Amino acid sequence: MSHYVIAVHCGAGYHSTQKEDAYKTLCKTACIKVSRMLEKNIDAVESVTEAVRYLENSELTNAGVGSNLNIRGSVECDAAIMEGKQLMFGAVGAISGVQNPVTVSAKLLTRQLGKKLSLGRLHPSVIVGEGANKWARENGLYTVDTGCLVTDYSRKTFNSHKTKLDILNEKINSKKRKFTVQSQEKSEESCAVLETEEGIQDTVGAIVMDTAGNIASAVSSGGISLKQPGRLGPAATYGAGCWAYNQRPGKPGVGTVTSGSGEHIMKTLLARESALSIQRENNVSLGLSNSFKESFLGCEQIKQQLQSEFLEGEKEKLAGVLALGQNEDKTVEVLWGHTTNSMCIGYMSPTLKRPKVVMSRLPEGGIPGQSFTMSGVSV
Amino acid sequence: MSHYVIAVHCGAGYHSTQKEDAYKTLCKTACIKVSRMLEKNIDAVESVTEAVRYLENSELTNAGVGSNLNIRGSVECDAAIMEGKQLMFGAVGAISGVQNPVTVSAKLLTRQLGKKLSLGRLHPSVIVGEGANKWARENGLYTVDTGCLVTDYSRKTFNSHKTKLDILNEKINSKKRKFTVQSQEKSEESCAVLETEEGIQDTVGAIVMDTAGNIASAVSSGGISLKQPGRLGPAATYGAGCWAYNQRPGKPGVGTVTSGSGEHIMKTLLARESALSIQRENNVSLGLSNSFKESFLGCEQIKQQLQSEFLEGEKEKLAGVLALGQNEDKTVEVLWGHTTNSMCIGYMSPTLKRPKVVMSRLPEGGIPGQSFTMSGVSV
Repeated sequence: MSHYVIAVHCGAGYHSTQKEDAYKTLCKTACIKVSRMLEKNIDAVESVTEAVRYLENSELTNAGVGSNLNIRGSVECDAAIMEGKQLMFGAVGAISGVQNPVTVSAKLLTRQLGKKLSLGRLHPSVIVGEGANKWARENGLYTVDTGCLVTDYSRKTFNSHKTKLDILNEKINSKKRKFTVQSQEKSEESCAVLETEEGIQDTVGAIVMDTAGNIASAVSSGGISLKQPGRLGPAATYGAGCWAYNQRPGKPGVGTVTSGSGEHIMKTLLARESALSIQRENNVSLGLSNSFKESFLGCEQIKQQLQSEFLEGEKEKLAGVLALGQNEDKTVEVLWGHTTNSMCIGYMSPTLKRPKVVMSRLPEGGIPGQSFTMSGVSV
Repeated sequence: MSHYVIAVHCGAGYHSTQKEDAYKTLCKTACIKVSRMLEKNIDAVESVTEAVRYLENSELTNAGVGSNLNIRGSVECDAAIMEGKQLMFGAVGAISGVQNPVTVSAKLLTRQLGKKLSLGRLHPSVIVGEGANKWARENGLYTVDTGCLVTDYSRKTFNSHKTKLDILNEKINSKKRKFTVQSQEKSEESCAVLETEEGIQDTVGAIVMDTAGNIASAVSSGGISLKQPGRLGPAATYGAGCWAYNQRPGKPGVGTVTSGSGEHIMKTLLARESALSIQRENNVSLGLSNSFKESFLGCEQIKQQLQSEFLEGEKEKLAGVLALGQNEDKTVEVLWGHTTNSMCIGYMSPTLKRPKVVMSRLPEGGIPGQSFTMSGVSV
């Protein structure tokens, strides 16, 4: 049987120990499901879409059903896919009323692989908002009432976050009524961070290498809790959420997906920069570790006080990267690194016989947003 | 008086000779207007926003008033801004009902330069669709009826393009009724390209270096004619439409803006790659020429048959880049290169005393989308 690899993760963030088994089972079953497709020589684009679709359909993840709610209590999703042969990219942003945003991204991608539109027009690669929903419907994709994407848990979390915000706003307004609050004043309350009892997860993602050696990666996200309607996150941003590049003469194949603090991941184009670093070093672990230290986290933890110039002054830099890298001898490594509290990863290949699942956590004493942990295996 | 530079362009594309004087006057007056601001030490972000706002307000440009209409006969705009000190970026995509999309991008950027949102939330850097319009209104920006952005000329162009498309679709459908048209069949008609008698222009842009040495760049676009509603173009895409980076120890300051075939510019992240190439070579013209040849056009015209792997197989690669590069001795160069038929550029600095305007055209025999021309000056 030809070689293939599937690697998935269900969101870097904070995974509660109570739900740890559920997260692991989700990653495991996603790997089994997609392995069966890859065994039948189904290609990387279709397989990776199915992997992310499966993650979207789980209420456990912040993607598709169960997505975080925005400040208006509604769901808007981002999703993207990239393939490594023709290096095409498709993404939807701030889309409502679609159960599986990744399938819309995949349709945008496959359209670009076909012939041009009439009158010499290029196919769009990114479609957003109401236009994205309409495009999905016109292209035969299933749309739903946005309410179907809201779960009891996401509504409960929204209510709790919204109450915190309303109390805070009331406090600020009452202060304003009493004193003239300086605009630069940074009240203690404004630094309080949104948390949930059961955990916080960001963008989910998957990377596939099919039996023909093609690499594809895909991501999906409901975005941050209480986000502004229309806010576009890294899961819809080229170079930020996912990257894929097939092996070419002198260049190793690579796939990456990211998860974490959206605007930081966008500014550093973390998926693309991690992939290019892996290719530059011709070494998956060295490449990923370098890109994290140089492009994202800075090197404070190794006392060099180097800061990523794109995130200067940011105290908390939260991200996770899952990578698949192809070596010259055709062996493949799956690697993950994160500065978030935890990241849950699953992977599978014919060599491994059965799917492996890891709940990776920062080592004891590690500070989320400042410390970094990395691990990986040959598959 | 301290040094400053303003450089603008009103869209790479095809500029008719009949309107050449009007385009030149537009670029010239934009330079004069912004120079007056820079002389008063107004900063790069505010000045570059004003430059693009002025270009948006002209009916001559495909930005703001006079934007191309989408397939539904409506206007949706993209705009972005980046500043080189904290390397912040703000963008709006597929926004309707706003006369000056660049002002919304600028507000998104300046918000990020201030304190965080309450509850530790990051400010959004990109907002799209209906959410972007709402955000603009909530943040005190002026909104209009989208119909105000439609001009007699843009409506006329839309009608002509739409008629062509309808005739073409009717032909295809009638063929389908007679024969089974193979899906891979590429009819001659489908290759016909949209043209207008008076010209086609893409994204407009401006770059400013203020008297403190800060660099900022901004772009705005109505997108391609007959585009899908919700389609996001390079003018809303980080790294594609504009880039800005202040001089730092060992790294020259640089600003770039791009214009042309959207999806090609997005795939190659042309603004960012051009800027990094200029910094890498520490030479503005060598850097810009290399990035065009390696990242965008490929080297066919110098018979090396090198293709950009991101645009493999594409026969027509249309783009223009305007760049501002700072040398080690603090001298500044303004440079432009394009594969489009023409590009109209204006620039001004205290050294020059009065604004200069150039209508740059491909040399005789040059083929748009395949040939490249480049020129520039010290300012």
